[in-house]
Amino acid sequence: MQRFINDPDFVVDDMLRGFAKAHADKVYISRDNDHVVAIRERDRKRKIGLISGGGSGHEPAFLGYVGRGSLDAVAVGEVFASPPAETFYDAMIAANYNNEVIGLLGNYAGDVMNFKMAADMAKQDGITARYVTAHDDIASAKKGDEQNRHGIAGGYFMWKIGGARANEAATADEIILSVQNVVNKTRSIVVGLSSLTIPSVGKPNFTVEPGKMEFGIGHHGEPGIETADLAEADGVAEKMTQALLDDFEFDRPRHVAVMISGLGAMPMMEAYILYNKVEEVIRNAGHRIDHVYIGNFVTSLNMNGVSLTIVELDDEIERLLTEPDVPVGLENY
Amino acid sequence: MQRFINDPDFVVDDMLRGFAKAHADKVYISRDNDHVVAIRERDRKRKIGLISGGGSGHEPAFLGYVGRGSLDAVAVGEVFASPPAETFYDAMIAANYNNEVIGLLGNYAGDVMNFKMAADMAKQDGITARYVTAHDDIASAKKGDEQNRHGIAGGYFMWKIGGARANEAATADEIILSVQNVVNKTRSIVVGLSSLTIPSVGKPNFTVEPGKMEFGIGHHGEPGIETADLAEADGVAEKMTQALLDDFEFDRPRHVAVMISGLGAMPMMEAYILYNKVEEVIRNAGHRIDHVYIGNFVTSLNMNGVSLTIVELDDEIERLLTEPDVPVGLENY
Repeated sequence: MQRFINDPDFVVDDMLRGFAKAHADKVYISRDNDHVVAIRERDRKRKIGLISGGGSGHEPAFLGYVGRGSLDAVAVGEVFASPPAETFYDAMIAANYNNEVIGLLGNYAGDVMNFKMAADMAKQDGITARYVTAHDDIASAKKGDEQNRHGIAGGYFMWKIGGARANEAATADEIILSVQNVVNKTRSIVVGLSSLTIPSVGKPNFTVEPGKMEFGIGHHGEPGIETADLAEADGVAEKMTQALLDDFEFDRPRHVAVMISGLGAMPMMEAYILYNKVEEVIRNAGHRIDHVYIGNFVTSLNMNGVSLTIVELDDEIERLLTEPDVPVGLENY
Repeated sequence: MQRFINDPDFVVDDMLRGFAKAHADKVYISRDNDHVVAIRERDRKRKIGLISGGGSGHEPAFLGYVGRGSLDAVAVGEVFASPPAETFYDAMIAANYNNEVIGLLGNYAGDVMNFKMAADMAKQDGITARYVTAHDDIASAKKGDEQNRHGIAGGYFMWKIGGARANEAATADEIILSVQNVVNKTRSIVVGLSSLTIPSVGKPNFTVEPGKMEFGIGHHGEPGIETADLAEADGVAEKMTQALLDDFEFDRPRHVAVMISGLGAMPMMEAYILYNKVEEVIRNAGHRIDHVYIGNFVTSLNMNGVSLTIVELDDEIERLLTEPDVPVGLENY
């Protein structure tokens, strides 16, 4: 296994130590729990604490989204494993200002279950903890069953809008409304060209045959919609974009934001090659792209692959997207 | 070849089209030359145009470093190939404000040669074009022969300091002095765990045996200092850090900046695992880390590998590092 790791069973501990040191001016590790990353200096106007949490291996998600204008605390799980209820609870405590905390989660069953258990624990302390889940991955459940879709790179917009609203001193109800709105208007699709290797397993989780692509693969290698021949980039980009547009079923031209996120091992050159066609397909469909995000936002260990996300914009989302935010895991990229 | 590309011979053209669209509000492609990316709105106080240029495959370098507080124009070469003199010339024209342009280059022979030819051409137009080269890669030439070392991720600091000085309305002489100062105080070292695949070649350029690492490998696969057993991350981090500290020969405790840059296919989790030990080694040597940069700053196509850069800080560098800059290729990461 060609990797920069120490003991494969302690990659998350090692990462957390390095992360806390690298961003020591902005974040700290909770004294109660060495798997909770929290912001040092909260935004002045913010009344409501925002947290997230999930398995590791998706860096900069989730821990990198702690920061001003973004999340207050994150519960960090082991690789691809939900953080235990206690860790979510400790994140709630770290993020608590006024006894109301909102979880902005990725809609994985374990994360939601453990968050709920943690919310019951927090209730004993007089803290109300509610949650919203991103469900942008259209390949993870059929249309009509959106509530069972997983959250992937589209989570960026949930954290962004939630953070911006919280900084406007919005109430918990108001934040949840705004976040739910952007979640409902966000769709993503993934294409994988390689497997990924969980450090403690030490060998690839599955196989992608040369010349093939996994269309709609999940961020943990969950089977996608189909194994298809790997077309030229333009063909892949068109297929991804069309799948999202079909799922949206827009009845008129819209303003949209577009995000292309590498999954960990895709060179950035290829993100731009894909974007060239994505833009053309969206434009030819009559829509207008107001914001573009290209980088590594939510990854899958060392998978060579890419996610495409489209967000249907409205006045509120447009306004909040331009608010400054500084997720610590993105600030230097 | 599991890649998102169209015709392997036109990956740079496709990338440039996507790049120009994604950042259309900030940059444009020169009408004279479709391989020149230039800034739309120059900084108000800036008197001197700053350019760079080099082969593609190192994204976000070089083209992504166009931006406010950074470069005015970049000459984009084919993959791993120097831009022709004409392209450097057209970049000079695009970046020209007051007939003085400075090139901030990576110290590869072809880049420097073509830049010089372009400078001769620009002279006919009354434009003076001088250049400075980064030479941070300590593995690329022996100590004492620093002028023959290549520039890699340390180029970030050359562009940053140059851009910040230019925005202070500094003269060309002043900018060159400041840039040369930071160049002289920057050292990097690379470890590669895999080969890389040039799209038009279609197969890996070389081989890294499982369980081995290439210590000191170059950004195009140039042979390094040694092929060594791949140790645990802590061992790799210690070896890299010590190599840089040995090369600096500090005679007293210093303030430093540290950058860890993935080479294209390294998961960000591993950058933090490495940083945990890098920080310890530097601290134990008595030095203080004032700035940390973790991300993908200068890459090598799909190589799984990492570069470590240390910059010796002084008052001027400290001051200029905190100036805002917005290289378009980094703004969304």
